[in-house]
Amino acid sequence: MITLTTDYGISDGNVAALKGVIYSIDPRAQVADMVHDVPPFDIVHGAFVIGTSYMFFPKGTIHVGVVDPGVGTRRRPVLIQTVSGHIFIGPDNGLFSLVLEREKIRSIHELVNPKYFLPEVSRTFHGRDIFAPVAAHLARGVAAAKFGRRLQAVQRLDMFSVQVNKNSVSGQVIHLDHFGNVVTSIPSKLLKENDRSIVVQVKGHSIRGLSGTFGEVSKGAPLAYAGSSGYLELALCEGSLATRWDIQRGAKISVTYK
Amino acid sequence: MITLTTDYGISDGNVAALKGVIYSIDPRAQVADMVHDVPPFDIVHGAFVIGTSYMFFPKGTIHVGVVDPGVGTRRRPVLIQTVSGHIFIGPDNGLFSLVLEREKIRSIHELVNPKYFLPEVSRTFHGRDIFAPVAAHLARGVAAAKFGRRLQAVQRLDMFSVQVNKNSVSGQVIHLDHFGNVVTSIPSKLLKENDRSIVVQVKGHSIRGLSGTFGEVSKGAPLAYAGSSGYLELALCEGSLATRWDIQRGAKISVTYK
Amino acid sequence: MITLTTDYGISDGNVAALKGVIYSIDPRAQVADMVHDVPPFDIVHGAFVIGTSYMFFPKGTIHVGVVDPGVGTRRRPVLIQTVSGHIFIGPDNGLFSLVLEREKIRSIHELVNPKYFLPEVSRTFHGRDIFAPVAAHLARGVAAAKFGRRLQAVQRLDMFSVQVNKNSVSGQVIHLDHFGNVVTSIPSKLLKENDRSIVVQVKGHSIRGLSGTFGEVSKGAPLAYAGSSGYLELALCEGSLATRWDIQRGAKISVTYK
Repeated sequence: MITLTTDYGISDGNVAALKGVIYSIDPRAQVADMVHDVPPFDIVHGAFVIGTSYMFFPKGTIHVGVVDPGVGTRRRPVLIQTVSGHIFIGPDNGLFSLVLEREKIRSIHELVNPKYFLPEVSRTFHGRDIFAPVAAHLARGVAAAKFGRRLQAVQRLDMFSVQVNKNSVSGQVIHLDHFGNVVTSIPSKLLKENDRSIVVQVKGHSIRGLSGTFGEVSKGAPLAYAGSSGYLELALCEGSLATRWDIQRGAKISVTYK
Repeated sequence: MITLTTDYGISDGNVAALKGVIYSIDPRAQVADMVHDVPPFDIVHGAFVIGTSYMFFPKGTIHVGVVDPGVGTRRRPVLIQTVSGHIFIGPDNGLFSLVLEREKIRSIHELVNPKYFLPEVSRTFHGRDIFAPVAAHLARGVAAAKFGRRLQAVQRLDMFSVQVNKNSVSGQVIHLDHFGNVVTSIPSKLLKENDRSIVVQVKGHSIRGLSGTFGEVSKGAPLAYAGSSGYLELALCEGSLATRWDIQRGAKISVTYK
Repeated sequence: MITLTTDYGISDGNVAALKGVIYSIDPRAQVADMVHDVPPFDIVHGAFVIGTSYMFFPKGTIHVGVVDPGVGTRRRPVLIQTVSGHIFIGPDNGLFSLVLEREKIRSIHELVNPKYFLPEVSRTFHGRDIFAPVAAHLARGVAAAKFGRRLQAVQRLDMFSVQVNKNSVSGQVIHLDHFGNVVTSIPSKLLKENDRSIVVQVKGHSIRGLSGTFGEVSKGAPLAYAGSSGYLELALCEGSLATRWDIQRGAKISVTYK
């Protein structure tokens, strides 16, 4: 099983080219589109999508991620294997940061062996010319060591941090989802569900207490809740909170206990 | 075969999570994306998409539908089997209304057995935690009765109605498609193709006669025709009628015979 | 393997219907979405997507293309086999023009045998009623000759031309991609990489020299480079050149050697 996450969009043929390359090398590959509408060059968005989805796939799944503004420069192409048995292939630019907040690394390999690339490697489309063929060869059984030498570390984004104080927790907005829900960097396990004594603050607005689900507040009302990705989220019931309060990624969030 | 129809969009990882859950339970499942760009919370749009597409899949196909503004509240998760052999899994909120205009129900089961859910069920993401795993277990051969008790009925939307009078038929706009074509609730089998004696009226505009296809009128001209979903449709030749005449879903349509 | 390229978008059920039809006829078919967000009726865009992606799929792949403003009129449905072993199914309206710039035709068949269509053929949805079922029957082993008589030629668009002069090459913009990069009709093999002596001109702007990749210029700067599809491309580093310089498809491009 190979998953694909890119910022290629779905109106050009780039994603199709990746699939074609994979099937040409391994006709029995099972390819699953994860997300192709990561905003162009938005590594943080890509990191969020991959980091909150990969764990639902079977162990042994190969996750190809391509959000790659540095394509063709000296940023390294890498293959990361986790102790838990997941595999990630893509540019070493922080795209797997959220994965690595959750997983222990078993090995990292740089992808340098042209034997496993397309015969001609362009300087602007490594998804097609390097990452897709490496994933397909790996799926066919080629050992990770064949692709290149081991590395000690990869880039990590400093985006998913949280600060725990005595009577408060502070973090930031890490994702605005399709519905306009606001995902924060604060793990919800740090909070207690239905705890009426907390107050969440963002951009001068306050939400008091945690709700269990959208239906507990009236349509159009704001709520805070333990999101399904494991983080504190803020939302409107059947509306977009991001639009209503003009919230951007990176906005500061604080939770205080009263 | 399992199909997926959601309002999750394609820029977040939600759809990927559904697929991952399914493949983790049934690695041999064949998963087909139906539509993921149902507008957020738009049950009517979802009902139209599912109700005009499911019948082209093989009998025995499991159709998972998730447009679920009431997730986490007391709306019931259900599994519907039709006499014709199709299976539908999703929230009991009217999402399968158009299906049930066309199909006879063989059985309805409420989904309550946590044995077939993910170990931890969130209150906001039942697609991943309940519907996807139930679909995968069903695909692996678990009997419907294992998931919960039988129900007598499910919710139905009162949206797809048509009124037939002596010299006229009236209905409403039930869908605006990707091209800006206007789909009405009037079954085209009630009308005769190329019948020049009918007049279709919507929002003060009139279209006289039925056309066979777009190419029969000049570019930019409006036409009425028997749509491929079985309903009377209105369109512009190579343009968007919905935009031109500012037509919304729910707009009244009348057909008179001259 | 069957690929699908359409302008159906992904918010309606049309693509789902195609897949359902294919799986109903050939449950073992492997279906790959290529692109479904070709702008409505935009044959040139469709031709570009198909013509720059098909070659990455295995020989023997069946490529279904449906961008079909003339559906239901006398434009012919066709099946094209190339000497290289690729197969194309769709309307005869120029959609396979770029493919045919690169490939030699082995045979063309008109699709007229209703035995291989859906029982009822609508006049507005031949993707579902003709092209998808023919592709599935072909995948199951039906010979091309069964679908209809041979044709001598198909329509071709006059869009991908280039004019080579003594000290210059001129062409036009054939595609604006998802990132706002500008693809020209000038094959990059006509130019030399890193040749500082060329000047590319478009809409009164000039770019001097060829770059190897985006990272060679500063963020926001324009560059010209050998694109991954084999054509000269123009872009901004991490930005949209199409927007910045208001470039439309069809805009004239000239390359002069200094």
